[in-house]
Amino acid sequence: MTVPLTRIDHVGIAVRDLNAGIDLYTSLFGLTVAGRETNEAQGVREAMLSVADSPGGASYVQLLEPLGPDTPVGRFLAARGEGVHHIGYGVDDVAASLAALREQGVRLVDERPRHGSLGASIAFLHPKSVGGVLTELVQSAAG
Amino acid sequence: MTVPLTRIDHVGIAVRDLNAGIDLYTSLFGLTVAGRETNEAQGVREAMLSVADSPGGASYVQLLEPLGPDTPVGRFLAARGEGVHHIGYGVDDVAASLAALREQGVRLVDERPRHGSLGASIAFLHPKSVGGVLTELVQSAAG
Repeated sequence: MTVPLTRIDHVGIAVRDLNAGIDLYTSLFGLTVAGRETNEAQGVREAMLSVADSPGGASYVQLLEPLGPDTPVGRFLAARGEGVHHIGYGVDDVAASLAALREQGVRLVDERPRHGSLGASIAFLHPKSVGGVLTELVQSAAG
Repeated sequence: MTVPLTRIDHVGIAVRDLNAGIDLYTSLFGLTVAGRETNEAQGVREAMLSVADSPGGASYVQLLEPLGPDTPVGRFLAARGEGVHHIGYGVDDVAASLAALREQGVRLVDERPRHGSLGASIAFLHPKSVGGVLTELVQSAAG
């Protein structure tokens, strides 16, 4: 059973300095900050910058500054420097999507949905199962 | 002057084998192939897979297989393995966007628009100027 993707929800980008990243994307591209939060569980301080709205929901550039070097994004920065960390796609139901993907033998990072940005329910799939791309499924709070 | 982004147009993903990549994204996520082409100038064989439609235009996963090791995507694969290669954002006018970004001191890969996927007019910005992200501006053929 396939898991239909409703949209590209966001591009997750690792940055060393969140404020500098926000300045860059707002000054070059006029993006606006839809929300800022600290996610201790993921070890990041982050901002969601709106790119556009679509019927399936908005799309964002998500900037991620690690809370310390010994976090997933901290290790990513040390190994690769700033750049794209993951891609988030919209789905209607994260829990059902995880069940369907598990049945297909996809390796999951998250066995069950957890708290994401802007109140969304999210889960990560392992890059080994998605062609080297750390892939996030996003069920937005809006619907 | 900022350059407004109208949407996340596509995520460009480097793959070793285009057919295997297409099989993966169609079987897991039910994406459909909107177009396949070979771009000799960029040294890639590629496919655009539709994720969703939005008022600003469709969004895609773009899979890129290098035509040889001595191409940008071939060198990317050798250095980093499969994964996200670049992000493409929609703009209304690529030429005007390049002029505005050049004035802001942004380093450009392409000084003028060139031919992209599905008949689009495109240009790349250097990752040094966009927080480590190879960034593509896309003016789609549809409008």
